Amino acid sequence: MKNVAVMGYGTIGSGVVEILDRNKEIIAKKLGEPVFVKYILDLREFPGTPVEDKIVHDFSTIVNDPEVSMVIETMGGLKPAYAFVKASLEAGKHVATSNKALVAAYGTELIKIAKEHNVNFLFEASVGGGIPVIRPLYTCLAGEEIEEITGILNGTTNYILTKMDKGGETFESALREAQDLGYAERNPEADVEGHDTCRKIAILTAMATGHEVNYEHIYTEGITNITEVDFVYADSLRTSIKLLGSSRLEKGAAHAFVAPVMIGMEHPLYSVSDVYNGILVKGNMLGTSMFYGSGAGKLPTASAVIADIIEALKNDGQHVELGWDEENLPITSMETMSFRYFVRIKGIAAKRLKEVEEVFGNVEAIELDHMDEFAVVTDSMTEKEYDNRAKQLSGIRQRIRAEF
Amino acid sequence: MKNVAVMGYGTIGSGVVEILDRNKEIIAKKLGEPVFVKYILDLREFPGTPVEDKIVHDFSTIVNDPEVSMVIETMGGLKPAYAFVKASLEAGKHVATSNKALVAAYGTELIKIAKEHNVNFLFEASVGGGIPVIRPLYTCLAGEEIEEITGILNGTTNYILTKMDKGGETFESALREAQDLGYAERNPEADVEGHDTCRKIAILTAMATGHEVNYEHIYTEGITNITEVDFVYADSLRTSIKLLGSSRLEKGAAHAFVAPVMIGMEHPLYSVSDVYNGILVKGNMLGTSMFYGSGAGKLPTASAVIADIIEALKNDGQHVELGWDEENLPITSMETMSFRYFVRIKGIAAKRLKEVEEVFGNVEAIELDHMDEFAVVTDSMTEKEYDNRAKQLSGIRQRIRAEF
Repeated sequence: MKNVAVMGYGTIGSGVVEILDRNKEIIAKKLGEPVFVKYILDLREFPGTPVEDKIVHDFSTIVNDPEVSMVIETMGGLKPAYAFVKASLEAGKHVATSNKALVAAYGTELIKIAKEHNVNFLFEASVGGGIPVIRPLYTCLAGEEIEEITGILNGTTNYILTKMDKGGETFESALREAQDLGYAERNPEADVEGHDTCRKIAILTAMATGHEVNYEHIYTEGITNITEVDFVYADSLRTSIKLLGSSRLEKGAAHAFVAPVMIGMEHPLYSVSDVYNGILVKGNMLGTSMFYGSGAGKLPTASAVIADIIEALKNDGQHVELGWDEENLPITSMETMSFRYFVRIKGIAAKRLKEVEEVFGNVEAIELDHMDEFAVVTDSMTEKEYDNRAKQLSGIRQRIRAEF
Repeated sequence: MKNVAVMGYGTIGSGVVEILDRNKEIIAKKLGEPVFVKYILDLREFPGTPVEDKIVHDFSTIVNDPEVSMVIETMGGLKPAYAFVKASLEAGKHVATSNKALVAAYGTELIKIAKEHNVNFLFEASVGGGIPVIRPLYTCLAGEEIEEITGILNGTTNYILTKMDKGGETFESALREAQDLGYAERNPEADVEGHDTCRKIAILTAMATGHEVNYEHIYTEGITNITEVDFVYADSLRTSIKLLGSSRLEKGAAHAFVAPVMIGMEHPLYSVSDVYNGILVKGNMLGTSMFYGSGAGKLPTASAVIADIIEALKNDGQHVELGWDEENLPITSMETMSFRYFVRIKGIAAKRLKEVEEVFGNVEAIELDHMDEFAVVTDSMTEKEYDNRAKQLSGIRQRIRAEF
């Protein structure tokens, strides 16, 4: 029997405890022995529940108990998660975490410490919820030169954008609905401003290249400026708008960004709707693969943690290589990246299109009925070029990157 | 440096040799040392090519060379692949294979031999070409009770059905086109009769349950009876027809079959077209995941073999648990499985619908213009029930299982 401790009895943590119970036979069979939750670290008590006796409030109980082989960190945030995870690894305990903020900020150091102490630090649940992507990237695509990873990595924003697209809702009402359903937090900033997606694409980029990625260097734009009017245009163009985290990999650098992008129906991510996530991986030999599934939710995410628990405990006494090294991968400036641009402009196309074409060159123009504006989709140009040109035009109401 | 031997220098085998060369730095970095192809076993010579000096015609050269750590089997078929793979494992060499016929027929025995000789027998490329699915099923979904696996597992038939669907082509002309493009073989029976899909769903079912599956017990129906007329009806129903391999898992048994099925637009496999494969996995905690990518083709399939080579050689001297045991999993009879049925019937709906409803109960009727027939979609019933009822009706021209 292996003893584990769960830190944080919130959504994911309680999901982990639930699956360890409900699927205990399968897990024991896969591992060769049962897994027992010895402690649950939480600030709260849970009187009258089955976990009542396992609750502890002091981390030292866990870290000092030699019977605890593994610690599962599902607290989220950096404090005190970072200190606790570090101390656990240093105490020779495996760690599995669902905490993308932790992995993106301290992954390099924690991977190194795990290696030094001959234990495993696993984080499948930090990206894509229950979708297996971290380990397949490392083991199943081991001989591939990964050329691109592009994903819909945040279920909350994908739900909001789907409601705006299919239901014609405003951003505000779609966000409220997501909050009512528990998909979005009271303070939705981390999701809607793209920060969550940014950390996830940073982790995937580091996994794909084997080098550290500083997520703060990745250009990140959220969805708060996307309006229901944008979706009316998108619909008439037979496109949709999705929040993408994307990384195109060249020798020694990544062109990475997070932004809403207008994509066409033939794009493999077009049909990834609601709270689902989809992660597209292009390899130089493999071509395009896609991983699709529940990107969030208690049990799917907890299921990924369970797989990490089995993997770590199966390799007790042995560090399984997974992750990246300390060499920092340069992220190229957003200025140098090229896109087409969907641009909404005040006025009437008949009067202003010539002026717009003088600025942007060849464009595709779209006019909707009863509007005091029109839109164009430009040819491809760099961000810098777009910015310079756009300055010459008055009345630009919206600019969304387009890939179709 | 690790020495390997490739058996069979056809499409996949030459792809493996090509990737080992083109991605050699990535592979050496992942493995910690380079991989060298010492021998290539083939009946042919390849004079004037870079592999000229590696060609051998006698398997004993490979099996008796203690420098060869691993054998890659890409010959296909059972003879002599089975004998060669068995002898290689018994000689303490790892084996990776892309040969689904071999894995479906002798997997149980070969997995056992690999374990006994402390080597690895890996077969990621046998299902889904380059799509990582075998290893994710085993490691990433380790703590899941898998409830269902349903996939489009054969690129050739999916290409043919896509051409019939989107291009209005007949089966014969779509098949000819697939043959001209090299997607289908001169003798297309293994693909179009569903045998290839049958072996693959058997392998996936064994992986998901951990028990041996006898593929010969799986009901298998191919696509040779599907006509362009079926697709006209499918289109008017906003559905498509796909060749599915499917396994629904209950305690101690699998409801498995291979057959063309009419599926609706909201089905995750609906948009899997052309030579692409898609594999849908439902877990009791995870919900639905889908793996999508190139199901065939030289380099994608070879890429999966490369990942197996790295995995096996990384674990030199150690058997990595993967596969199934000798306990045979019962496959339930097709008679007991339930579907809706799409049925085309000679005559005019106005005259015959009442008779049809008396036989099948509640149905959805579809009439196309200028036809001497009509179609209905029944409610769900077992195969046995359908067969018994259908006997009472004259003029049934077609019957396709429907899930929408």
